[in-house]
Amino acid sequence: MRCDTLWHNANLMTLDDASGGLGLVRDGVIAARDGRIVHAGPAHAVPVFEVDQRIDCEGRWISPGLIDCHTHLVYAGNRAGEFEQRLQGVSYADIARAGGGIVSTVRATRAADDAALLKATLPRLDAMLAEGVTTIEIKSGYGLSLPDERKQLRVARELATLRKVEVVPTFLGAHAVPPGHEAQAYINEVSAVMIPAIAAEGLAEAVDIFCENIAFSPAQAQQVFEAARKHGLAIKIHAEQLSNQHGAELAARHGALSADHIEHLDDAGIAAMRAAGTVAVLLPGAYYFTRETVLPPIQQLRDAGVPIALATDSNPGTSPLTSPLLTMNMGATLFRLTVDECIAGFTREAARALGRGDRIGQLAAGMECDLAIWDIEAPADLVYRIGFNPLHARIWRGQPA
Amino acid sequence: MRCDTLWHNANLMTLDDASGGLGLVRDGVIAARDGRIVHAGPAHAVPVFEVDQRIDCEGRWISPGLIDCHTHLVYAGNRAGEFEQRLQGVSYADIARAGGGIVSTVRATRAADDAALLKATLPRLDAMLAEGVTTIEIKSGYGLSLPDERKQLRVARELATLRKVEVVPTFLGAHAVPPGHEAQAYINEVSAVMIPAIAAEGLAEAVDIFCENIAFSPAQAQQVFEAARKHGLAIKIHAEQLSNQHGAELAARHGALSADHIEHLDDAGIAAMRAAGTVAVLLPGAYYFTRETVLPPIQQLRDAGVPIALATDSNPGTSPLTSPLLTMNMGATLFRLTVDECIAGFTREAARALGRGDRIGQLAAGMECDLAIWDIEAPADLVYRIGFNPLHARIWRGQPA
Ligand SMILES: [Zn+2]
Ligand SMILES: [Zn+2]
Repeated sequence: MRCDTLWHNANLMTLDDASGGLGLVRDGVIAARDGRIVHAGPAHAVPVFEVDQRIDCEGRWISPGLIDCHTHLVYAGNRAGEFEQRLQGVSYADIARAGGGIVSTVRATRAADDAALLKATLPRLDAMLAEGVTTIEIKSGYGLSLPDERKQLRVARELATLRKVEVVPTFLGAHAVPPGHEAQAYINEVSAVMIPAIAAEGLAEAVDIFCENIAFSPAQAQQVFEAARKHGLAIKIHAEQLSNQHGAELAARHGALSADHIEHLDDAGIAAMRAAGTVAVLLPGAYYFTRETVLPPIQQLRDAGVPIALATDSNPGTSPLTSPLLTMNMGATLFRLTVDECIAGFTREAARALGRGDRIGQLAAGMECDLAIWDIEAPADLVYRIGFNPLHARIWRGQPA
Repeated sequence: MRCDTLWHNANLMTLDDASGGLGLVRDGVIAARDGRIVHAGPAHAVPVFEVDQRIDCEGRWISPGLIDCHTHLVYAGNRAGEFEQRLQGVSYADIARAGGGIVSTVRATRAADDAALLKATLPRLDAMLAEGVTTIEIKSGYGLSLPDERKQLRVARELATLRKVEVVPTFLGAHAVPPGHEAQAYINEVSAVMIPAIAAEGLAEAVDIFCENIAFSPAQAQQVFEAARKHGLAIKIHAEQLSNQHGAELAARHGALSADHIEHLDDAGIAAMRAAGTVAVLLPGAYYFTRETVLPPIQQLRDAGVPIALATDSNPGTSPLTSPLLTMNMGATLFRLTVDECIAGFTREAARALGRGDRIGQLAAGMECDLAIWDIEAPADLVYRIGFNPLHARIWRGQPA
């Protein structure tokens, strides 16, 4: 058998499904051809390959490229001033009255053209890539009108032409009620006009909604999900972040890929997620930044066998975070996830949350050859350290990236 | 007047004493000669200079180079495995019984020679420098014998020959009771043998002690302080981290440069620190990593006018943190420090905590020309973002570093 590249003298975190855990292989090799993995396993049991290029990893660790399955990376504007005011004791209400909060991001994002949005987003994307990200989900939701939502999604796609990364675009028109609109009228527009248009243009794979007492109701979420399903788009939800709206349960009943945040999730929600195979996407960056005190029901999720992913939730209002590694540390430190759960949460389980469990997130024959090669002594180093990046190399579709 | 280099088209955070805050100058210039600042101020009021080299900062922001005034950067070994076990539910007691905890770092540090210690430390130092650090304090305290403490301090100094950075070495022999020793006998040795030797060899500027119910008593701290004073060394203390031992008050009465941690500090301690000019060094990384819930008395420190510095406390057991910028974000998010306090805490106030307030930490004539040049829109960006490094350039003693 022929392969383009063979990485050897490496330790592998294969994350293979069978292991359930990290699927460690000491002294392993990975062989790739045409951007796909054709073999991953121990050195003592490698098939005979004709190899174009051999890469000696000098004992380093290889994991699947990291997958950030929940971000709001594309936006304009800067909310650092608002952060500063909050620390000086100014209330959210006063900031909102002065035009701050999400409205300010919507205003800036609407005012920016494609080039300006791209320029604002690239440094954030580059920070992610520098830590080994090879796939990133990006939501719209700061346009809140069809042209502006389209623009965000267009820019998200364009990022993938400028960098070696797979971008998964999600339509989050139902992020907030746009200024000057009434919630139900806006949801009618999202469902009847925006979702059909976005689907027809192929601008998003999935539809997301912020279901919360300060945003949209479960009934409105149901309306959006039905429109999404009708137009062949997958479903995701921001659910149970501030209160239990039973949004995760509703989404799971509609076959959602993931329910995200879920600090206030109850047993019925867990049971519905388990039944549907809906992934729990935990977002410790938002928990940290907003000083939340209610933890997601992690032990119950484990006990039920609900898959757990982790993501940065990178966004200007509640999680201005662009470090997957730090997010893993927060998952461990704040949520008490294990090392295995944190790493799986940014690889195998994140892939599932994006409906790509069969294609990325594991080192196994048939998977895309997306790799992160690390200068570490053991997998736990990725989670334990705070503010340190041990990435040695990033490989995307078999190529150094 | 002549200068080597003139940075212009820059916005300055001068941190000058007179301002008390960030001392902002829009459209400012900095002129340096022989590694020192000879002028810093607005462009419209610059003296006439003969300039060798003009650097256009293109509107970027310049702050003093960052100063990390409390680290334990030099050590060998790896405690990631212990972190992993803790997440799996293993108790501290069981880890200690199995030879883990600080004892494992002491064992590994003792076993490492100078070259191995240097090699283990350099990546941590480089992570700091990449975020604009130009001065770093480094404590011993993992040797716990005269030869091994000497070795740590020697390696700390050697770092400054390999990188453009000022290293401030602190002797922390009284970090823990070494295995097989009795606490009072060890303190007698620290005071009567180790401090005189370290002072005679010029290996440290200051003496620190961990005063806590799980470490050394206030009486033992007093003994150590008296020895330090007798041998011309400055004083610092790890105080009131887990309980109120009145260590900060004691240290202040001995003229301590700083009292560090101080979550459990009381009013008497604050009054003593204020009277002595002792700096409060806050360590939010340790607070975060150990999931502490008692906050330092920040409003009382402010009200009393005690200077507040921030530091990483970079160490393998309770703060495996090598990011000053993230530490600022933790200072704001977890401790509710203002943006100005966070930035001053890593510049002007950190300089004071190292007895260098007259030489570094401000952009002013006569100060060392240690600069951090940032790709940011406003100072708040440094504190607001999480896991993002906007450093454009680091200047040490007037030279790109
Ligand atoms: Zn989100
Ligand atoms: Zn310390």
